[in-house]
Amino acid sequence: MSKLRLNVTMSLDGFVAGPDQSDENPLGIGGELLHQWLLPLKAFRETHGEEGGEVNASTPIAEGILANTGATIMGRNMFGGGPGPWGEKPWRGYWGDDPPYHHPVFVLTHHAREPLEMQGGTTFQFVTDGIESALEQARAAAGDEDVSVGGGATVAQMYLAAGLLDEMVISVVPVMLGGGARLFDNLGDARPKLEQVQTVEAPGVTHIRYAVAQ
Amino acid sequence: MSKLRLNVTMSLDGFVAGPDQSDENPLGIGGELLHQWLLPLKAFRETHGEEGGEVNASTPIAEGILANTGATIMGRNMFGGGPGPWGEKPWRGYWGDDPPYHHPVFVLTHHAREPLEMQGGTTFQFVTDGIESALEQARAAAGDEDVSVGGGATVAQMYLAAGLLDEMVISVVPVMLGGGARLFDNLGDARPKLEQVQTVEAPGVTHIRYAVAQ
Repeated sequence: MSKLRLNVTMSLDGFVAGPDQSDENPLGIGGELLHQWLLPLKAFRETHGEEGGEVNASTPIAEGILANTGATIMGRNMFGGGPGPWGEKPWRGYWGDDPPYHHPVFVLTHHAREPLEMQGGTTFQFVTDGIESALEQARAAAGDEDVSVGGGATVAQMYLAAGLLDEMVISVVPVMLGGGARLFDNLGDARPKLEQVQTVEAPGVTHIRYAVAQ
Repeated sequence: MSKLRLNVTMSLDGFVAGPDQSDENPLGIGGELLHQWLLPLKAFRETHGEEGGEVNASTPIAEGILANTGATIMGRNMFGGGPGPWGEKPWRGYWGDDPPYHHPVFVLTHHAREPLEMQGGTTFQFVTDGIESALEQARAAAGDEDVSVGGGATVAQMYLAAGLLDEMVISVVPVMLGGGARLFDNLGDARPKLEQVQTVEAPGVTHIRYAVAQ
């Protein structure tokens, strides 16, 4: 069966977003420091329609985020659009008309909404009946390919606590945010068993791949 | 000038000891999982008077903990002996008659005590007037060699928050403790600037060396 994978960048002190997150500043204070390893890469710029960029030891990791991935699941905060129902001029996500996913994206939300078809093969589908339903729909859409948990922290925690995650790639950056959204939090009594599979040293970041025992 | 260095093993969820630490169980629940990369190593066993053991990619890291180190600073909890004054039959530490340090060790405590000379060159000295005094004394004892912050988390945090730490080697293990002593906590408004210097992939652990900007 296809895997459920999480790729996420974490500050050394454990946060995936800084304090005071908002729709205007979804990564919180200092959160822009998290992705400095990713943004200059050719592999990232290409997926956002930009030319040029660097190739380094992070390239295979950046490529791996979308490689062999047939569907993505994300939370309402990562999709954006503010709290409450969607309103009359609904938010279309942070990624412009042609989002970098190019496959179905399932957004966990409390507010139902018709699917939103974007350019380039990305369709946002809004799931109101929980993480297991979202995973089931995502697996059906992905076929033989993997399903990626896009974030944010809350969604990652729910899949981890439920024992549904198969693999995590944690990109640890030399940044201290001091507060914000902590990745490994709210896990209750869940103590996932991890196996370190691979470590990649790259400029300004260490990528560690873990298998999660079910 | 010699460096102030921290070598510490951290669970992926950010803890250097598990929940419910006590004198009987100083690493807390699950804490024994933290050092499984270290204990089988020949480099570790040698410093504890034992023969045999493994040699792998962690060996230089384990050797580096004590190499070029002329003094160690640790907290009262790491030294042990319980809360309150030392009493009539004072505790002599967790390390037997010949501790692995072989240099002066400065123990931060609220309770004065005469220096305790052990076998093999280790002398425990008890410092009651704060982290800067301990560092000054440790530097004087270390000469041209480095000073190591042995732990625990509280002592590491105090030196980090005060901007006195020069280098950290964080050994990240594939373990989730879910609670306990968090390494990067209580830093107040301090946001140390870090530079990733080196990453070492080793069996069951990833070692990351950071320079801390002063």
